[in-house]
Amino acid sequence: MRITNIDDKPRDECGVFGIFDTIAVSDVAATYAYYALYSLQHRGQESCGICVGDDGVMKVHKGLGLVPEVFTPKVLEALGPGNMSIGHVRYSTTGAPQLENAQPILVHHVKGSMAIAHNGNLTNADELREELELLGGIFHTTSDTEVIAYTITRARLTEPSIEKAVTAAMYSLKGAYSLVIMSPRKLIAVRDPQGFRPLCMGKLGNSVIFASESCALTALGAEFVRDVEPGEIIVAAPEGVTSIKTHCGGKKRLCVFEYVYIARPDSVIEGESVHTARRRAGALLARSHPVDADVVIGVPDSGLEAALGYAEESGIPYGIGITKNRYIGRTFIQPTQSKRIESVHIKLAPLGATLEGKRVVVVEDSIVRGTSMRHILNELRLAGAKEIHMRVASPPVRHPCYFGIDIDNREALIAHQLPIVDDIAKEIDADTIGYLSIEDVRRIAEVENADFCVGCFSGTYPIEPPQDTSKRKFERKLSEKPSKE
Amino acid sequence: MRITNIDDKPRDECGVFGIFDTIAVSDVAATYAYYALYSLQHRGQESCGICVGDDGVMKVHKGLGLVPEVFTPKVLEALGPGNMSIGHVRYSTTGAPQLENAQPILVHHVKGSMAIAHNGNLTNADELREELELLGGIFHTTSDTEVIAYTITRARLTEPSIEKAVTAAMYSLKGAYSLVIMSPRKLIAVRDPQGFRPLCMGKLGNSVIFASESCALTALGAEFVRDVEPGEIIVAAPEGVTSIKTHCGGKKRLCVFEYVYIARPDSVIEGESVHTARRRAGALLARSHPVDADVVIGVPDSGLEAALGYAEESGIPYGIGITKNRYIGRTFIQPTQSKRIESVHIKLAPLGATLEGKRVVVVEDSIVRGTSMRHILNELRLAGAKEIHMRVASPPVRHPCYFGIDIDNREALIAHQLPIVDDIAKEIDADTIGYLSIEDVRRIAEVENADFCVGCFSGTYPIEPPQDTSKRKFERKLSEKPSKE
Amino acid sequence: MRITNIDDKPRDECGVFGIFDTIAVSDVAATYAYYALYSLQHRGQESCGICVGDDGVMKVHKGLGLVPEVFTPKVLEALGPGNMSIGHVRYSTTGAPQLENAQPILVHHVKGSMAIAHNGNLTNADELREELELLGGIFHTTSDTEVIAYTITRARLTEPSIEKAVTAAMYSLKGAYSLVIMSPRKLIAVRDPQGFRPLCMGKLGNSVIFASESCALTALGAEFVRDVEPGEIIVAAPEGVTSIKTHCGGKKRLCVFEYVYIARPDSVIEGESVHTARRRAGALLARSHPVDADVVIGVPDSGLEAALGYAEESGIPYGIGITKNRYIGRTFIQPTQSKRIESVHIKLAPLGATLEGKRVVVVEDSIVRGTSMRHILNELRLAGAKEIHMRVASPPVRHPCYFGIDIDNREALIAHQLPIVDDIAKEIDADTIGYLSIEDVRRIAEVENADFCVGCFSGTYPIEPPQDTSKRKFERKLSEKPSKE
Amino acid sequence: MRITNIDDKPRDECGVFGIFDTIAVSDVAATYAYYALYSLQHRGQESCGICVGDDGVMKVHKGLGLVPEVFTPKVLEALGPGNMSIGHVRYSTTGAPQLENAQPILVHHVKGSMAIAHNGNLTNADELREELELLGGIFHTTSDTEVIAYTITRARLTEPSIEKAVTAAMYSLKGAYSLVIMSPRKLIAVRDPQGFRPLCMGKLGNSVIFASESCALTALGAEFVRDVEPGEIIVAAPEGVTSIKTHCGGKKRLCVFEYVYIARPDSVIEGESVHTARRRAGALLARSHPVDADVVIGVPDSGLEAALGYAEESGIPYGIGITKNRYIGRTFIQPTQSKRIESVHIKLAPLGATLEGKRVVVVEDSIVRGTSMRHILNELRLAGAKEIHMRVASPPVRHPCYFGIDIDNREALIAHQLPIVDDIAKEIDADTIGYLSIEDVRRIAEVENADFCVGCFSGTYPIEPPQDTSKRKFERKLSEKPSKE
Repeated sequence: MRITNIDDKPRDECGVFGIFDTIAVSDVAATYAYYALYSLQHRGQESCGICVGDDGVMKVHKGLGLVPEVFTPKVLEALGPGNMSIGHVRYSTTGAPQLENAQPILVHHVKGSMAIAHNGNLTNADELREELELLGGIFHTTSDTEVIAYTITRARLTEPSIEKAVTAAMYSLKGAYSLVIMSPRKLIAVRDPQGFRPLCMGKLGNSVIFASESCALTALGAEFVRDVEPGEIIVAAPEGVTSIKTHCGGKKRLCVFEYVYIARPDSVIEGESVHTARRRAGALLARSHPVDADVVIGVPDSGLEAALGYAEESGIPYGIGITKNRYIGRTFIQPTQSKRIESVHIKLAPLGATLEGKRVVVVEDSIVRGTSMRHILNELRLAGAKEIHMRVASPPVRHPCYFGIDIDNREALIAHQLPIVDDIAKEIDADTIGYLSIEDVRRIAEVENADFCVGCFSGTYPIEPPQDTSKRKFERKLSEKPSKE
Repeated sequence: MRITNIDDKPRDECGVFGIFDTIAVSDVAATYAYYALYSLQHRGQESCGICVGDDGVMKVHKGLGLVPEVFTPKVLEALGPGNMSIGHVRYSTTGAPQLENAQPILVHHVKGSMAIAHNGNLTNADELREELELLGGIFHTTSDTEVIAYTITRARLTEPSIEKAVTAAMYSLKGAYSLVIMSPRKLIAVRDPQGFRPLCMGKLGNSVIFASESCALTALGAEFVRDVEPGEIIVAAPEGVTSIKTHCGGKKRLCVFEYVYIARPDSVIEGESVHTARRRAGALLARSHPVDADVVIGVPDSGLEAALGYAEESGIPYGIGITKNRYIGRTFIQPTQSKRIESVHIKLAPLGATLEGKRVVVVEDSIVRGTSMRHILNELRLAGAKEIHMRVASPPVRHPCYFGIDIDNREALIAHQLPIVDDIAKEIDADTIGYLSIEDVRRIAEVENADFCVGCFSGTYPIEPPQDTSKRKFERKLSEKPSKE
Repeated sequence: MRITNIDDKPRDECGVFGIFDTIAVSDVAATYAYYALYSLQHRGQESCGICVGDDGVMKVHKGLGLVPEVFTPKVLEALGPGNMSIGHVRYSTTGAPQLENAQPILVHHVKGSMAIAHNGNLTNADELREELELLGGIFHTTSDTEVIAYTITRARLTEPSIEKAVTAAMYSLKGAYSLVIMSPRKLIAVRDPQGFRPLCMGKLGNSVIFASESCALTALGAEFVRDVEPGEIIVAAPEGVTSIKTHCGGKKRLCVFEYVYIARPDSVIEGESVHTARRRAGALLARSHPVDADVVIGVPDSGLEAALGYAEESGIPYGIGITKNRYIGRTFIQPTQSKRIESVHIKLAPLGATLEGKRVVVVEDSIVRGTSMRHILNELRLAGAKEIHMRVASPPVRHPCYFGIDIDNREALIAHQLPIVDDIAKEIDADTIGYLSIEDVRRIAEVENADFCVGCFSGTYPIEPPQDTSKRKFERKLSEKPSKE
Repeated sequence: MRITNIDDKPRDECGVFGIFDTIAVSDVAATYAYYALYSLQHRGQESCGICVGDDGVMKVHKGLGLVPEVFTPKVLEALGPGNMSIGHVRYSTTGAPQLENAQPILVHHVKGSMAIAHNGNLTNADELREELELLGGIFHTTSDTEVIAYTITRARLTEPSIEKAVTAAMYSLKGAYSLVIMSPRKLIAVRDPQGFRPLCMGKLGNSVIFASESCALTALGAEFVRDVEPGEIIVAAPEGVTSIKTHCGGKKRLCVFEYVYIARPDSVIEGESVHTARRRAGALLARSHPVDADVVIGVPDSGLEAALGYAEESGIPYGIGITKNRYIGRTFIQPTQSKRIESVHIKLAPLGATLEGKRVVVVEDSIVRGTSMRHILNELRLAGAKEIHMRVASPPVRHPCYFGIDIDNREALIAHQLPIVDDIAKEIDADTIGYLSIEDVRRIAEVENADFCVGCFSGTYPIEPPQDTSKRKFERKLSEKPSKE
């Protein structure tokens, strides 16, 4: 069911979840995490993991694959009962999927065990890591989450509680991090001071819940309480829930791409419906890039809502123009592998009945590399579309993201290669093209005190990006670097 | 990706495919079948198979699971080159999935090998089988397809060619059968005289193609030629393509459920777009069952097109009201299995932004057992829908199907249990309900000379249904029947 | 655990088993078969199957792999309770392992279901098959067992009972067949008139048991009753056990290779212990081929007993000279696959402490292709053996077997290539070599009325071998044979 | 192929391997490790792993299962080329098999990467761990190997080279450790000052090899060079091989159980053949516990050599009395699981021909829990043995091992429960019993300067055993210990 090589979409690296029962140990702690992670599956499809805490003893299971593949009833049962659990779904940003980079990370330190699940990306992971190594630290993974774990446990040596240790550690951590942390007695949610990635709190009976998106609360039948504030630390302990706001107070620099593509349409982030934001994006697009046409269609699934917004605002009828094959799985043999077959149209089927002889507005949420869009438009023309007007419900993506979305290869971005948008139209064979402006994309969601991060569109980031993004030292050969030993 | 226990939908039993290269042996005969079957996957997700023919030698591979699960590059390669291939996807109608009932069936007889793929259901399989047994025949499976194979090979003993044997056998076979048959030198497509199940012909370079639906032709980049006529036998041989119309001439009794639910919206059957038929069904529904409401939503994916038709005809705005989780796989643990968790909302997520405070028209293509619909409407109310007006784009399903769709347990049908439709509204907690009339469902597709089979709605069938539909004799114990030995 | 490419041994094609409870249906019918087949695993490691009969209803499960791999507790449970079961382990004699050739074969015919498990090889399968095809028969497999099933069910059309049908069919069947057959009410054991393959009867409580070897009886804690006689049909029915001896009376032409290599040493066949027969073979070898040496070692595991017999008779001390790695599994990567590594010594480890500086007698039960023996002797020399005297506890294998052992490629037999045994000694780098004479091999087991089949040694067979052993017609291309259609 | 619950044997925890090519990078570094680990498979069958080093970059793959199961050609290829590799096979001593405890452990520290493979058991792991935690260390596993890794990398902070860091770390490490360590440029072998576990060095072309047993050298066709001395550090670097003997000089306290049972008979440890040691044990046993009998048999496979020694010394004929089923795999369903079947004799088959009416001496290398021995003797009696004289080629096991063998539950030891050996005879139903004395077991191998560890027999250990062997703190609940947070 991984569809990345087909969809050509930016990928969020992770989704996190945590649940804490203030009263009782339950044998469904792992099962709650299972269903919640399943509803967050769109945030990461490469690996997943669940850690259950029972009175200081923690059990974790992680695996490569989708939630229902990694967690069988037997595995869930083996995780045992507990009064809390945390979970994680993830993409890897580099190289082949590796089990060792799966999360949650479970570590043992002088005060007991700690498990941590992380959505985001540190910008100073390398510097922190080097400091910790100089103090004698050893690392088992190459992920920045292990750096966070180390920074917190190290602070815990001198701080009197886990939450104080987290507070102290946050003075060192730079970048994007929505965390759920499990200590022997407590469950702690943390969001970086910019609030790059979403994180919300819910309630279900005696349980406190934290999740990347509200759709996980809905899935469990839980009540939405509020978003965790940027910079906030929320501590769920047997004695109650408390909030630490030492790092709070800045502007919300939430990633606008969460509304554009990443989050699920039924999620509500910072008080704004993702679905509504996407329809609004379509409406703004209709205003800024109107066109005379017969039908508006969306590219399923992510372009459908903006298409509806465009149709509503423009008065052009909304149509269903493309059917998606629902059965593509991870083992599907790409037509490119069987070279002798030249043109196989496997994933998207254009609907001739909607398209034939029509002037068609095609709406998509975003275009990253552009390869699949060219393919789709070609299919639409084969099915009879007379004119194709491409409308993109976000600005051109021209810059890398350093805060948790996998857009790191500038060269692959079509809008970087072709700075003039009309050249993009030519490249993908559209008659016209229109993108949402950076100004407009900031308006798709109405969030108080928000100054969204639009770095991937503008190249200007809320905080300084990392200097060196080259390969990590443990992946460099001796002959490529100054010898040390 | 099997979703039957969730979707509560009737299931078609099969999809068939065949390709014949009139000139050359190719090493992609199996690969063509692979992509075609993948595009027909919606017609059967339990098992699949491909048989490749190379100059009289036939190799087959069958397995339980989806096409990409059963066929790896290694398996496709092992099937070897050939000048033709046939393929099959299937549901089983009874009991547990069994590999022995997977197709194509490959048999060896006095004239060589023969492979056969079948979509449909014989109504006189038991009688034919008994006759064959009395002549000394033995059977390895309990499927009616083996009966067809036996009837043809037996006729072949006295008939001078495979096509003559098929012609002769058709005088015995009663019921629904769209067949693709591979003999050592020929590929033969056969459709029963009523044409219950679709079957079409296409062309790709020097190859003749047969497939259950035109979407398989589109997938391969092939050209649609025409539908196989009810009663027609088309023979593709090295010396050319010929048609035998001995059994042709009756009315088309095509199953109307193909348009309502079974076929893919981008397929064109008997000259009519499935997508258009569904939108027309929605429009007819809007005329016969109008209502004052704020938004029209469809149940994804099968209700979306009828919903759009309803919205267009009624003037009520079309909305996106439900999001579907795309990651449910075959190993997903149903919430019913974990009893301690009372309400998990895993598959469909209602969109509060569309529903809250609204009077909602909910359109679905059909309701069979009704259990999931009750669940869905409940979710919509929780998300804020003020009124719910259920509109069903087909008549109430009250009778079994004997011609290839898995509706055989009358007791499970909600419209059989509750003959008064308002009782159904109560049962699923809708404010009002409206079904398409039998008269109207006949009008959703404009097909020349067609008198659609609407037996599952009306109880009146184009041909006599089988007398005894009780368990087959090989599944009955000795103590339950007159002892024979 | 398949070791064929390493062991270079002839392979028996099959082992069969059946159990019939004269009183009660039990939920362990499948489990008994499981343990019995496990104890017969040495007779076939490629595929296995179990069929359970419950009052006329039969359920079968077959798979590729070892018994514990194919049968999980879940599968055994799914086979359900029954009053009888039959089972089968097998090698395929040709080509790649194929599930369709796995046994038992379950067929349905006019009198109900029948399941059959077969050890042996028909010599007139092709002729019978052609006759059946001319009568309209179709075949799903290419195995001779399906021919047997067909012949019996066909006879059943006119015969009043299954046992009469078997009796009648035996007039047609030629070659080696030890059968266990399940009819709706009866379990039937059959052994061909020559008794090529063993088959014995046991008793456990109210159950009658049939098995290829007595070791299966021991495994179940059952009592050995007697061997099934050559030509005998034994019928276990609710009303009792009866014997039909219409085809009995000839000499026992049991395959002597069963004693030499095939059977398990703890089995007793025709009243003679296999272990004793092997020790006796060693003793006869010591008498006919004495040598001055320091130690006698056997090649594990099959040569150990003859080595002990040689040592006892010769007075030369018995030693342990070779250790076998017990962990070789079916997925093991053969060193030949990793070409860059020249010499890996993975399977057999010579024991320097036993060999160094010694004159060593190396005893093996038989040599077929000779490749691995050369390799072993080389290892022994590297470990310090000063002289190597090869002693083989059977005559040179120079001819194919047509009666159920996989020795069909005459060209691969070292004793066929090198008719002078001293040349074999040179080829495998032994200082001297000695084989048991054909006269002596007939004496290793003392069986009344026996005239063992020694065809693979002598080239003279008890019954006429098949004329044409070329490829079957369904594996021949049209262009390679007279066209038929 | 895991046979622990059947064999009732003590289990060694690990086997280690390393290879270093002084000249070239090779693409078979992983493959050498594969074959070597395969030959060491008897030392650990639960998990295995290989790490390849290429100019400072290290790649590791670990998995649960046997070597051929975990390592496919694809996996070996993915490990890439390298100039060195290390490997590990292991049992877990506690609880369920866990992937996180598999080895080699690969860590990243300030000087680069380091991989480590360990055979043995630290006695002060808990103390060291607590010290490291107090300095801020975090741990990902609960294994003592991570403690070793931490201790070395920490020392490396101040020591100028990896070998100096190892030398320094050894002042802290107490207990049994045979290590193979990979640094970016060097391969290092380390053996604890007592030399509890074996470790030897070999040579193959330009490569230096280290392995737990010499059988791994034989497997690769390598030359045996010498054993690593107790306390020695051997460093293989591009500039040559050097030895550090700072910790050398004490007596060899090698575990005598390596000769008794653990090691492979073809291995030579400290100059003494394991095979010879076992035969000598049998001979010593014949002298100390003679008996009047007809035949001496060994329990396969581990008792065969001592049985031969007993027979040779006593003059009683050696016989083969038990056949072992070679096909038991890890998925085998134990008869205990199917309760309705009372007595299944699946693993060992007694040979009636050897046993019937005989007075039998049964020799086994050791008895730990005694359960399977009772079962075996029962089988021998059923097969006709008239008298059974049990002879055990080692002393009674009455005490735990703290140095790498899994004998930690004193209560389960039959010789602990029944201090009088005649009671053991009764318990297992032997007519007489005789054990080797502690004095004699010290004499089975002639090793210079050796004072074998016989702690599991005597209760007296070469170094102080750990004080607290209760559950580790991370597996203890908060409510079971003084709360810390």
